[in-house]
This record gives sequence, structure tokens and C-alpha cells, in this order.
Amino acid sequence: MGLIGSSLAHVCRRKGLAREIAAADTSATVRETVKELGLADEVFETAAAAVSGADLVILCAPPGAMGSIAQNIGPFLEPGVILSDVGSVKASIIKAVAPHLPATVHFVPAHPVAGTEQSGPRAGFSTLFLNRWSILTPPEGTDPKAVARVAAFWSGAGSNVEIMQPAHHDLVLAITSHVPHLIAYNIVGTAADLEEVTQSEVIKFSAGGFRDFTRIAASDPTMWRDVFLNNKAAVLEMLGRFNEDLSALQRMIRNSDGDGLFELFTRTRAIRRGIIEQGQETAAPDFGRRMPET
Amino acid sequence: MGLIGSSLAHVCRRKGLAREIAAADTSATVRETVKELGLADEVFETAAAAVSGADLVILCAPPGAMGSIAQNIGPFLEPGVILSDVGSVKASIIKAVAPHLPATVHFVPAHPVAGTEQSGPRAGFSTLFLNRWSILTPPEGTDPKAVARVAAFWSGAGSNVEIMQPAHHDLVLAITSHVPHLIAYNIVGTAADLEEVTQSEVIKFSAGGFRDFTRIAASDPTMWRDVFLNNKAAVLEMLGRFNEDLSALQRMIRNSDGDGLFELFTRTRAIRRGIIEQGQETAAPDFGRRMPET
Repeated sequence: MGLIGSSLAHVCRRKGLAREIAAADTSATVRETVKELGLADEVFETAAAAVSGADLVILCAPPGAMGSIAQNIGPFLEPGVILSDVGSVKASIIKAVAPHLPATVHFVPAHPVAGTEQSGPRAGFSTLFLNRWSILTPPEGTDPKAVARVAAFWSGAGSNVEIMQPAHHDLVLAITSHVPHLIAYNIVGTAADLEEVTQSEVIKFSAGGFRDFTRIAASDPTMWRDVFLNNKAAVLEMLGRFNEDLSALQRMIRNSDGDGLFELFTRTRAIRRGIIEQGQETAAPDFGRRMPET
Repeated sequence: MGLIGSSLAHVCRRKGLAREIAAADTSATVRETVKELGLADEVFETAAAAVSGADLVILCAPPGAMGSIAQNIGPFLEPGVILSDVGSVKASIIKAVAPHLPATVHFVPAHPVAGTEQSGPRAGFSTLFLNRWSILTPPEGTDPKAVARVAAFWSGAGSNVEIMQPAHHDLVLAITSHVPHLIAYNIVGTAADLEEVTQSEVIKFSAGGFRDFTRIAASDPTMWRDVFLNNKAAVLEMLGRFNEDLSALQRMIRNSDGDGLFELFTRTRAIRRGIIEQGQETAAPDFGRRMPET
């Protein structure tokens, strides 16, 4: 019951997507918070206890934890239940989860492409998925009716829905999410380790661009460790492309190739226009962070 | 009269920082807009015409244009005038500007570390500099009274003020602004050029992190070309550090070094806390981009 689990609970309540919500978390502190916030009708210590009588089970955990959760709940899943997840990688989660599921269970892996840099049950809110895209990656042979029900669930939560092959999902997300996080973590680390520039200077003058990267680099460390360990091939492939392009850019600077720089810096503007036009980003300058007039 | 010039005009009006504002721009369209918005008392085609009778002249132009502007206005600067600028690099601007100035002119180079991804005279607003830092890099021997007046000017605009050596400024900004822009431009270029992932997919699934980078990569191409051409050594130095660290991170992923990844991803959170605590960033999750409840 972190950011995604608690956001799902909020939107289920608000949009009437579930008759009853049973939550599970191994942390006593999290369970207390879930009760305090009224996020669930029942709160359990183990996922195995929570799945009893469920129509739809959604695993909201770091990618590396999915396999053992599936192992624990496998024997307790009722025939005909739909099992889904919200993991940011798909092929490795399918590989880890599927072997533990009885043949009567419909497995429809999913990934809502939405989040903030905050974590935990207090971070959730009902509009997290609104206008975002949720990607479903059902293994071959999955009952289309089960896929349609999960798609309807995410539509009910406000999302657009796309069906994709797991391997293609992992490649697309490597470039739109995983490598961006990696280079954000990296530059924040580089800045922190410099000797010529103090940490205090990095903080003071961060409004020049650096501060934007610190938002992404404040994301949940466990989840992101698991993403990189579980989408290794696609991340290394996309990182290779990034590095090739960065070397070319480095050479342009060294050779004072102003035209080459200008050409790239002009081309990149079009992508943002597309993102704003398709409702995936605010059109307000500086993400709308403007200070009020005084 | 772009983003910075027009923002300065707005804050000068609102805070009474200037008795009279004379603006100059070589573009007829920009001059029309400046008149329409009432940003200046007088609007000139050439900077040489605008500086007549001025106490304080501020060059708001891309770094590569500063030298020729200084050459043009040099003969028209009145004795005792203070000349400043807002360029994002300092050593090369000082080198380009200083030779054109009469000995009676006080040269106090400045850099307000503030901006948005938008450009032009309509992009300006009076709070752009509020709570941000403006860095002054006066050459040795500059009259301290002139430095104090420029510092007071930026304080009046709402900024904090710091005095720095030009070379140190260029190093600090290379890591807090120039390299972040470079890698943002780079990853947006990489994503646009992929064959396995379509541009439409990059746009749809950009909320996973990528969209944040497109904001920075939508910044003014002329200005940023000039920044990289005029701060080559410091940018290449900092980019070298970034690349070394990224190689180490790449190796951690390849070797499944989860502990190494977790350690970095935890450490980077502290920097953002510092930036928020020191008022250089909003504490709201996702820069406050939350969709309203429906």
C-alpha cells in the first residue's frame, strides 16, 4: 500500500470500482496508516489472507517482490480470479509470477504509467491515473474477457489503455522512464561528489535546471533498484544509444559546431509540443511553478 | 527583450527600480510587442540609441551576441555609467565585452539564475527572479560602489545576491545548469531517433519521467548554442565526470549490483530535501502538476 496501492484505493472509492477493498501490507506502520485513512474495508498482514474471496487481485509491490508474493498467494487464489499487477517492468515479472499461478487464474499484467517522487500510503491520491496511459501485457492465450475487465477497471480509474507485448513494453519504458531516471540519479550523484563545487553551491544555484532532475532522483530507491535489475537488457540497449548520441554532442562542443547544436536544440522542441497537445503535460511554463506576485 | 529583458522590465515597473526604461531590440516584431505591453518608456532599434542618458545598462542577449553589442554601444556610453549583463556564462562574456568599454564605465557582469523554457517578450513576468540567486562576477579593480548598486538592483528585483570569480561561476553553472540542459537535449534527441519505439509511443508514455526532460529541452536554441560554445572547457570537464559516473552505474546494472544502485538512489534524495528547504523548489509532489478531482 504505497503510492500506487493507496492511489488505487482512493480512485476505487471515489469511482465505485470495487464493492469491497481488502488491503495487505507486511509493515505494521503502513497497515495502521491504511486504517487511519480508511483506504480499505479490511487490512491484512499477508497477501495470502487478503486474496480470499477476491474477484480481482492487484499486486502493488516493487518488481523484485512480485515472484514471492505470487508464490505465497498462489494456493489461496480462487478459481476464475483475475490477477494483475502495476509493475514498471513486464517480461521479468511475468516470468517470476506465472509459474506460481493455478491454471484457473487469469493473469493480466498491467503497468499504469503514472507516479510522483513520493512513496508510501499517505502519498496516494485519486487522480494519479487520470489521463495517463495504462499498458496491459497479457501473455498469449489469456482469456480476452479477463483482459477486457482489467481494461475497464483502468478506464474507470481515468486511464487510457493500450495492449502491448511484454518485451516491447520493456523497450518503450526503458527510453521513456528507466533511462531518464538513471541519468537523473547519475547527475545528482555527480554533483554531490564534486570537490570544486560545494554541495551548498549546487543547492543554491539549482534553479538553472538541476533541480528538475532532483525530483526524479528522489523516487523510491527499492522500486528503482528492482527496475534496473529486472529490465537490464533494454536499459543497457537504450543507455548505449544515449551514450552514442552524447559522444556526438560532446564532439560538437569540442569542435565548436554551432550549427549542429542549434539543429538538435530546435528539433527537440517539437516533442514537447506533442506531449502537451496529447494531454500528458501542462502547457504552463516551468511546470506552473511561478511565484505569486507580491 | 526576450524572457529575461521583459521580466526585468516588469519587475522594474512593479518595484519602482527605474525612473525610466529604454528598451532596444533589432526585431521590429519584438519592438511592437514591447510597445503593446507597455514594457518600456522608449523603444529603440539599436542599443547604441537606447544607452544615451542611462545610469544602468543591462545587456539581455545570448552570450554570443554580447561582444558586438558592446562594440556598438561603447562610444555612446556616458562617463560613470554602470554596464551589466544577464549572460549564463561569465568569463567569455567579460573577455568579449570589456575591450569595447571606455575606462570611465563600471562593468559589473551578472547572471540571474532563473528562467523558464519559454522565450520572447511575452514570456516575461515580474516574479521570475524572486527568491532566486543572482551572481555578480566583477573583474578585479571594479569600483565597489558600482558592485553594491548592481547588488541592490537585483535585491530590489527579489533575488539573493552572491559575488563570485567568473571562472568559478562557469564551473558551478556547468554542473547546475549547462550539463543538465545538455543531457536533457540529448535524451530527447535519442528518443526521437529510435526506430524500435515510435515517436507516438514516446509521447504517449512520457509521464514515466521523460516529459520532465522535454521542458528543459524546449529552451531557446540560440541561447543554449551560445552557452556551450562559450563555456566549452567547464562543460567538457563536468560532462567527463558525468560520463565516468554513468559508466560505473552501467556496470552496476550489468553486474546486478543491487546494493550499489540502492546506495546511490538513497543518497540522491538528500540533495532535493536541501533544495526544497532553501526555497529553490516547490515541496509539492510532481512539481504540483496534480490533476483536479472529478
